Amino acid sequence: MRVLSGIQPTGRFHWGNYFGAIRQYIELQQGQEAYYFIANLHALTTIRDPETLRRLSWDAAVDLLALGLDPDRAALFLQSDVPEVSELCWLLMTGTPLGLLERCHAFKEKKEKGITADAGLFTYPVLMAADILAYDADAVPVGEDQIQHIEVCRDLARSFNHRYGDVFVMPKAKVLEHAAKVPGLDGGKMSKSYNNTIEIFEDPKAARKKIMRIVTDARPMEEPKDPADDHLFALFALFAPPDQRAAMDATYRRGGFGYGEVKKGLADLAEAYFAEARARREDLEANPKRVADVLAAGAERARRKARQVLDRAQAAMGLKVDRAP
Amino acid sequence: MRVLSGIQPTGRFHWGNYFGAIRQYIELQQGQEAYYFIANLHALTTIRDPETLRRLSWDAAVDLLALGLDPDRAALFLQSDVPEVSELCWLLMTGTPLGLLERCHAFKEKKEKGITADAGLFTYPVLMAADILAYDADAVPVGEDQIQHIEVCRDLARSFNHRYGDVFVMPKAKVLEHAAKVPGLDGGKMSKSYNNTIEIFEDPKAARKKIMRIVTDARPMEEPKDPADDHLFALFALFAPPDQRAAMDATYRRGGFGYGEVKKGLADLAEAYFAEARARREDLEANPKRVADVLAAGAERARRKARQVLDRAQAAMGLKVDRAP
Repeated sequence: MRVLSGIQPTGRFHWGNYFGAIRQYIELQQGQEAYYFIANLHALTTIRDPETLRRLSWDAAVDLLALGLDPDRAALFLQSDVPEVSELCWLLMTGTPLGLLERCHAFKEKKEKGITADAGLFTYPVLMAADILAYDADAVPVGEDQIQHIEVCRDLARSFNHRYGDVFVMPKAKVLEHAAKVPGLDGGKMSKSYNNTIEIFEDPKAARKKIMRIVTDARPMEEPKDPADDHLFALFALFAPPDQRAAMDATYRRGGFGYGEVKKGLADLAEAYFAEARARREDLEANPKRVADVLAAGAERARRKARQVLDRAQAAMGLKVDRAP
Repeated sequence: MRVLSGIQPTGRFHWGNYFGAIRQYIELQQGQEAYYFIANLHALTTIRDPETLRRLSWDAAVDLLALGLDPDRAALFLQSDVPEVSELCWLLMTGTPLGLLERCHAFKEKKEKGITADAGLFTYPVLMAADILAYDADAVPVGEDQIQHIEVCRDLARSFNHRYGDVFVMPKAKVLEHAAKVPGLDGGKMSKSYNNTIEIFEDPKAARKKIMRIVTDARPMEEPKDPADDHLFALFALFAPPDQRAAMDATYRRGGFGYGEVKKGLADLAEAYFAEARARREDLEANPKRVADVLAAGAERARRKARQVLDRAQAAMGLKVDRAP
């Protein structure tokens, strides 16, 4: 299995990103050929400030390494460091029906919200298809909201292969578990756009304050509660080892506890959970050259693969003339 | 002045291409920094057969060299051999309002004719803008029909520079003379789509036959005729040296001649006019390695320039992180 995943550097990673996606990406590096890229070309459709994009891209790389992405197993690189992807993007563009793009949710939703539509946002799924196809990826871990884009990618690959011969490997979406299930401070899905997030590498004191502000209900302490529909419990369960989780489950069902205790327990667990990553992160921050080297080596590895795929596509379309006559 | 021109390899070049564009491109190589590319990435929007595209791209390169393009003065290369253009295309795409593309004639016309619109056709002006901006071109020789695309390019460059700083050189259209004035066999504008062309390197006998079929009117031989509104005279005048042209002008005004003689004279003139180019073409065909070397050297030269421009654009947008922190 060859795994490919792009991570948008649109903000510091929060718990929702971690449990919904990053942790699972990182697990997929075991025993696989894996390519993980910081999707800075995609991010251009929303981030117009160069300093912000630079900082977020850098942070994304450092965060992923701190969280356990092993550059000896997986190639980690910046999307913009692989020119072959942009090249492939245009090749695919020439075979992309406009209607296919017009039907994409992400575009339709942004358009309906009145966000000025530009060509980058509109053709985003074509670049995404190029990202996937450039590495012969056969598994693409995604959240539910990205399944349609994988379908677009498969459509484009299928019609390209039909027209020009067997050039692209057909990718499959590997839908992430729990992607939509990490609750935020307000009990809704944790998401930067709802301003209800706790960042992974937030200052522990600030994180603790946020945790203490998690919205809870006003039922009396004594009342037994069903942990299954409690978002505070859901968060606790993400971090707790099985025995603590079982104990907290029992406490909920029994009643006679304060949410404050749960929050305090959650804060302790979360701090411990990310302590090692936090230490690794500090090391990396102190040694930026190491991060730069990892990204450079990752890009080189990614380019070696992407070059093969692009060569196949260019030859199939008749773009290589020098060896023809 | 830095000149840039893309030539679409959509068919063998005909007299209309030569007098309307190619001859003027080639003249612009004198004393200028000039970049000429075979626009095979653009051609993908219309040519789906790889063998056809390969053959036409090759022929375009050989034809241009045979017609006097001097690779020591001008860089001649394949568009697809410069990855930086595809990279720049995406960067520009993220700042291209959809409305700008929707208003482009070429797209509107093709759409109105019921040609299935794909994303390549739709975003074609963005790739064209990337082509132009990638070489800091300040003069772009174009026909009337392409002026709008240069305007799109200027719009994109202007708004990019406004947002990210002074990255792109603002190009100017250099509108070609006579671009629309070469008549075809039927007296209408010579164009492959009207099937009324005579190819530059057509077999001389076949060309002669076509010339003899040029549509003329049925006025009596004796009648004096105005050369100014005669398409046969217009073709004759393109090839004739001044004295022969003046003599034919007088013949028209005097009357008492047959169109057959004019056609024969035109065929002789045209054959002589392209004789040297034809001989050069035969040499080149016999030595394909030389052509391949010219294209490779041209691409290298083009890439050196395009790399600088792309570096500026990527840095301005915040895509380069390795040297940031």
